[in-house]
Amino acid sequence: MKLASLRGGRDGRLVVVDSALSHCVPAGGIAPTLQDALDDWARLAPRLHDLYVALEAHQSKEARPFDPRECAAPLPRAFHWVDGSAYVNHVELVRKARGAEMPPSFWTDPLVYQGGSDDFLGPTDDAPFGSEDWGIDLEAEVAVIVGDVPMGSTPDDVRRRGDIKLVMLVNDWSLRNLIPGELAKGFGFYQSKPATAFSPVAVTPEELGDAWDGGKLCLPLHSWINGEKFGAPEAGVDMTFDFPVLVAHCARTRNLRAGTIVGSGTVSNYDRAKGSSCLAEKRMLEQIEHGAPRTPFMKFGDRVRIEMLDARGRSIFGAIDQQVARNYR
Amino acid sequence: MKLASLRGGRDGRLVVVDSALSHCVPAGGIAPTLQDALDDWARLAPRLHDLYVALEAHQSKEARPFDPRECAAPLPRAFHWVDGSAYVNHVELVRKARGAEMPPSFWTDPLVYQGGSDDFLGPTDDAPFGSEDWGIDLEAEVAVIVGDVPMGSTPDDVRRRGDIKLVMLVNDWSLRNLIPGELAKGFGFYQSKPATAFSPVAVTPEELGDAWDGGKLCLPLHSWINGEKFGAPEAGVDMTFDFPVLVAHCARTRNLRAGTIVGSGTVSNYDRAKGSSCLAEKRMLEQIEHGAPRTPFMKFGDRVRIEMLDARGRSIFGAIDQQVARNYR
Repeated sequence: MKLASLRGGRDGRLVVVDSALSHCVPAGGIAPTLQDALDDWARLAPRLHDLYVALEAHQSKEARPFDPRECAAPLPRAFHWVDGSAYVNHVELVRKARGAEMPPSFWTDPLVYQGGSDDFLGPTDDAPFGSEDWGIDLEAEVAVIVGDVPMGSTPDDVRRRGDIKLVMLVNDWSLRNLIPGELAKGFGFYQSKPATAFSPVAVTPEELGDAWDGGKLCLPLHSWINGEKFGAPEAGVDMTFDFPVLVAHCARTRNLRAGTIVGSGTVSNYDRAKGSSCLAEKRMLEQIEHGAPRTPFMKFGDRVRIEMLDARGRSIFGAIDQQVARNYR
Repeated sequence: MKLASLRGGRDGRLVVVDSALSHCVPAGGIAPTLQDALDDWARLAPRLHDLYVALEAHQSKEARPFDPRECAAPLPRAFHWVDGSAYVNHVELVRKARGAEMPPSFWTDPLVYQGGSDDFLGPTDDAPFGSEDWGIDLEAEVAVIVGDVPMGSTPDDVRRRGDIKLVMLVNDWSLRNLIPGELAKGFGFYQSKPATAFSPVAVTPEELGDAWDGGKLCLPLHSWINGEKFGAPEAGVDMTFDFPVLVAHCARTRNLRAGTIVGSGTVSNYDRAKGSSCLAEKRMLEQIEHGAPRTPFMKFGDRVRIEMLDARGRSIFGAIDQQVARNYR
């Protein structure tokens, strides 16, 4: 099943989308918003799935063309958005570029930060920033949406209960030049992590077939900058912590409530021929190879596209396709 | 005007509470939940205020006794909870206790972290933790709830527009023994900041009269541990960054959406005779005076009470009154 939120109100209007991303059908009669559906998932998901089956069979009278440009993020706002750094080879590279050792615990203890979740960007929304000097960067990632996860749950609990309800793509916009000052203060990211964008649709794990192994999404994550291919690292390779492990890490001292979004962090492979998912990584590789970065951060007017294709080359989640824009305030 | 959310559903049921905290009246006909009210505040706040006026005049037929034990947090879940460290003398003390200099920028650039907002505790809910070894500590604070704040707003914008809609008290539970490991990883707090508790009612700034100076709440914040007075520092004294400054700091690179909660951080005065608002501060003072801390962190079964009284000794927000409990999972 594939779900999206068309723009409208603070929480959007829930629609069920067909597998080809060509048509959708309003789901407001079942749940006005995706958060409403997640709040009562066990009861409502089967009803949404019935809509999906009818839509796939071309038996839905209310079907209408699906246009990703009408989409907000699947959750236009959420109660919790926590992003991991699950591709630890990327973290290792960051450290190497600045000549610092990485503590061995980084291979066993996940690194996460909590992001702003009250104001997500839709997949084709402009991404507004106050200054190019902030070091504007994409981060192409995979994320999951979970149901209620009780405090103290283990990765096995998360798998057994089927806590992962939906999967989607993320552009975790980052302001690289604000990061050093903020991390030096010791409290982690805040201003350096502005509004995050998500793919047009969120997809159930079942719908992903063999590409979902229960913990990881095993397909390349493609990104383009200004129409040029930037990277396509394999999301299922070099992911040190899979999603059930990340979710259990987050639930160690707190309950996670339905609708919590857990991200993978920048997808990154040891095989550098696969390309990168953020400019920071490319610049660090240039730093190591040439002694200085050569690729600039993004400018106003630049575009980024992030997409994942199935084995037959069809878009699974639709594309995140955004332009960097000046915020005039 | 005073507002509360009685337990019921994931977002509670909105009630208007009288100034004496003795009676309340259901507000569901105007807005089922406080988040609904905040989403359309300009239109709905005057209608809620009409209910308040009638309740104060004993002209409300639906009035019923108000019992804080029936309360969830005013926002049982929120889309954004960001907590400052506005009493910089406290931060300076933390550094002094571990023999570290504080960067001068800490006096001019606010320190904030983002907390979990999907699962708040009500004012009398047990606070559940997996282990006493985690170093369980209270943090008594003041917080505000804002309306929509556009990216790039200044403190003057925040004041002029009246972005601060409501004020409340916070117990920002902290797990002190998890903090050093987490901060060493460089991404800030996550597991070390479990679910946060809030006072029974949230109060409009107007209702606070002279105690609200437009940016600070100028009254002592009382806390008790197991019935013994622990501290009553003045919330209006030594607050280096007032709420409009904190809000503008948070809005530098992002929009803040209606219902965002911004906290002050642990209230702390240079005048140590006022007592503290967290055990960590008391332990640091003991460390400096005696070479080692003497006061232990909290144990299962311990109680904490946090309350603010007006000039006539009446409770403004009701009391946060919680017991520390073992989470058995």
